[in-house]
Amino acid sequence: MAHPIVVVSNRGPVSFALDPAAADGVSSRRGAGGLVSGLGPLVRGTDAIWIAAAMTDGDRQVAGRGVTDAEGFRVRLLDIDPDTWRTHYDGVCNEVLWFAHHGLWDPVVEPAWPLGWVESTWSAYREVNAAFAAAVVADAPEGAVVLVQDYHLCLLAPAVRAERPDLRLVHFSHTPFASPQWLRMLPRQARHELLEGLAAHHACGFHSVRWQHAFEASCEDAPVRCPPTFVAPLAPDPADLAATATSAATVSAVGELDALVGDRRFVVRVDRIELSKNVLRGFDAYAALLEAQPERRGQVVFGAFVYPSRQGVAAYDRYARAVAERVAEINERFATPEWTPIAYDPHDDYPRSVAALVRADVVLVNPISDGLNLVAKEAMIVNERDAQLVLSPHAGAWDELGEAGAWRAEPFDVGATALAMADALDAPADERERRAATLRAASLARTPADWLADQLAAAGG
Amino acid sequence: MAHPIVVVSNRGPVSFALDPAAADGVSSRRGAGGLVSGLGPLVRGTDAIWIAAAMTDGDRQVAGRGVTDAEGFRVRLLDIDPDTWRTHYDGVCNEVLWFAHHGLWDPVVEPAWPLGWVESTWSAYREVNAAFAAAVVADAPEGAVVLVQDYHLCLLAPAVRAERPDLRLVHFSHTPFASPQWLRMLPRQARHELLEGLAAHHACGFHSVRWQHAFEASCEDAPVRCPPTFVAPLAPDPADLAATATSAATVSAVGELDALVGDRRFVVRVDRIELSKNVLRGFDAYAALLEAQPERRGQVVFGAFVYPSRQGVAAYDRYARAVAERVAEINERFATPEWTPIAYDPHDDYPRSVAALVRADVVLVNPISDGLNLVAKEAMIVNERDAQLVLSPHAGAWDELGEAGAWRAEPFDVGATALAMADALDAPADERERRAATLRAASLARTPADWLADQLAAAGG
Repeated sequence: MAHPIVVVSNRGPVSFALDPAAADGVSSRRGAGGLVSGLGPLVRGTDAIWIAAAMTDGDRQVAGRGVTDAEGFRVRLLDIDPDTWRTHYDGVCNEVLWFAHHGLWDPVVEPAWPLGWVESTWSAYREVNAAFAAAVVADAPEGAVVLVQDYHLCLLAPAVRAERPDLRLVHFSHTPFASPQWLRMLPRQARHELLEGLAAHHACGFHSVRWQHAFEASCEDAPVRCPPTFVAPLAPDPADLAATATSAATVSAVGELDALVGDRRFVVRVDRIELSKNVLRGFDAYAALLEAQPERRGQVVFGAFVYPSRQGVAAYDRYARAVAERVAEINERFATPEWTPIAYDPHDDYPRSVAALVRADVVLVNPISDGLNLVAKEAMIVNERDAQLVLSPHAGAWDELGEAGAWRAEPFDVGATALAMADALDAPADERERRAATLRAASLARTPADWLADQLAAAGG
Repeated sequence: MAHPIVVVSNRGPVSFALDPAAADGVSSRRGAGGLVSGLGPLVRGTDAIWIAAAMTDGDRQVAGRGVTDAEGFRVRLLDIDPDTWRTHYDGVCNEVLWFAHHGLWDPVVEPAWPLGWVESTWSAYREVNAAFAAAVVADAPEGAVVLVQDYHLCLLAPAVRAERPDLRLVHFSHTPFASPQWLRMLPRQARHELLEGLAAHHACGFHSVRWQHAFEASCEDAPVRCPPTFVAPLAPDPADLAATATSAATVSAVGELDALVGDRRFVVRVDRIELSKNVLRGFDAYAALLEAQPERRGQVVFGAFVYPSRQGVAAYDRYARAVAERVAEINERFATPEWTPIAYDPHDDYPRSVAALVRADVVLVNPISDGLNLVAKEAMIVNERDAQLVLSPHAGAWDELGEAGAWRAEPFDVGATALAMADALDAPADERERRAATLRAASLARTPADWLADQLAAAGG
């Protein structure tokens, strides 16, 4: 007999807008994002309750109603004080935990915790987690399995366990997990609460055995008793992906890319402009290749489908400017009247991004660190030209795709990345076909349903 | 029966200058530095041979003579091509291995290995190591124990073992050792050679069990068969230290500091201005304390005896400028006509530095990462006022001094460092005395002779 399911995540599967024309004063629409697109179809139309933070004014209106049915979901939105939520989300999740888990600080100067940081800032993370804990305690059905998603929500398990011993709690991290050395950069109290919070789950899951080991090592280092752990990589939903790939918008975008690329080879990357994604070194590797092997000039186009994110955060704005400047420098240096080395347009266009993966000859995925990298798998599934994958071993997806036939791109090694791109471009047709087929099979080996089943199994439910 | 000893280090115990007035055309003088002052007295006047690189024109002259007696040492200097040696020392040792072992890169943008780096730069490290290997092979007495010192010389063991199976090879790292995550930032080939080079020793030694574990973890991660390892922290030579502390220059400098400090409390740090030493966050902690507890203003002086190092290297020059600016800002912000919060003079003056340790009420040692930190032990030995030690747990010396009575200063936590300084300043006299006595005993518990004996024991010789 299946246990009831409660999903707990920062962002929910439905968002609401105030709508005076609607009978209940709000209109709803489905949310986006990797978690929602992976998990959404599996819980839509079931009794599962999805608890998330209210983000919009419409969400806040709905929050007062308790568990609400919308778009096939049963959602429970939490109306959290906006300043507190903002401090939690920007001041802790994005500026601290994301950096620690991905290893993005420049240790010589950052982080530098000011006096009272735990009281002024970490306290907001505690408060938001406490609000989620209270909602789980109040609304979870008897004996439910509670699936807590990601680094935003690491502290709620102790309070839930104390109040609701009938529940089974599973935490899943979509990011990497910080090594002990990086986790030690947090204030001691915050590190301790984070690990104790995770340890209070019945199981903690990760996309890669490396993040699992890093978590276990961080527990041992603290020391905190390590809970049971499991590895359950997410995978794309093939039907969902096929629908996008064959949509009119994508087909049209493929046609435009055909015109752009012509009979040249097409190297593609699709990423947010995110510090962990290593966009600059990717361009540098391409430039190194054009420099060292001039015969490639005019024979290849690098399609950089990279889109600004976290705008307004100084480090991200600086990085986005650096990306635009690097593109301009490289194009200035190598372009000819007939050929622009890098095609770059920072306007986010999802069908065009999928079209680029369909049309690519080589896909570059070279992050410094990445929980999984779903794009790598998506590319191998939708591509129609036996695209070669140049992949960083620091992406979680390396576990499944590395040995299967990806070309290795060490993220800090511009030269090695350049040579991997060259190897990928030069591989003979039979090798391309063999690698692409193996990688496609590896990318299709699991589905979101497998990932969900692994979490339920880990719950012992 | 004792085995003959060969010491191998980048810098030797004697340096030579061309001197037309001398019978053999050169004059000699004893070198300085932690290794020479620790190991020098123990091997001077023995049959031990010390192999090092020629640095000066005088050294190069002597290099041609083979093993040479000077200043009580038997030295063998190697005349290495200056460009090669410079690339080895600056391009690999200082800019790469130092950064990896101390964790000093900003991973978003550095390192970024250009195409051909192994051939153009790492090759110089190989060449210098090969020159040392050839000298050991040629000059080591039958059955000698060869003590290879520090991160400059990690590749010579395989060649020496192949040619001279009679020798016992020990490597000792004076730095931390890179965690697997940081060592993976090196080009794969360089990382592999580094670990294989170390693994070819009969034993590898470290100042702290943490560096030992990091080395073992890096071997497992590579994977490379891990050699036997040992922990043998260095300690000051108490006689040598006492001689300096009671010298006329030091006594005079103590008098000057008395006049400067008056009846205020005296917080002291003595460091090179080195990225790993965390000088800026130390000032920020002091400023946070003055801000949060205004009653301390005018009651304390921070003596910053910090001296520029690696001048000409952009990151170090920038850091030194930032240090001077931060001092000026804090003094500008808090100073009164009668009181300057920070006494800072970047002119390196060894007797004055020792005098500051003698005269301190609180000694701040807050590195991001530090192999040992001999200053912490020296301070506890020479101080005459029951000085309290505010110590980073990321210094190797924490292993011996942390539990013994140091105040804990998490290096990334400015607030926690400020509070540790406050606790150290406010400790009652009996607690001060107890902690100082325990730390003095812990700092005197070992001598350089113990450290040498541990290396010889690890050699199985």
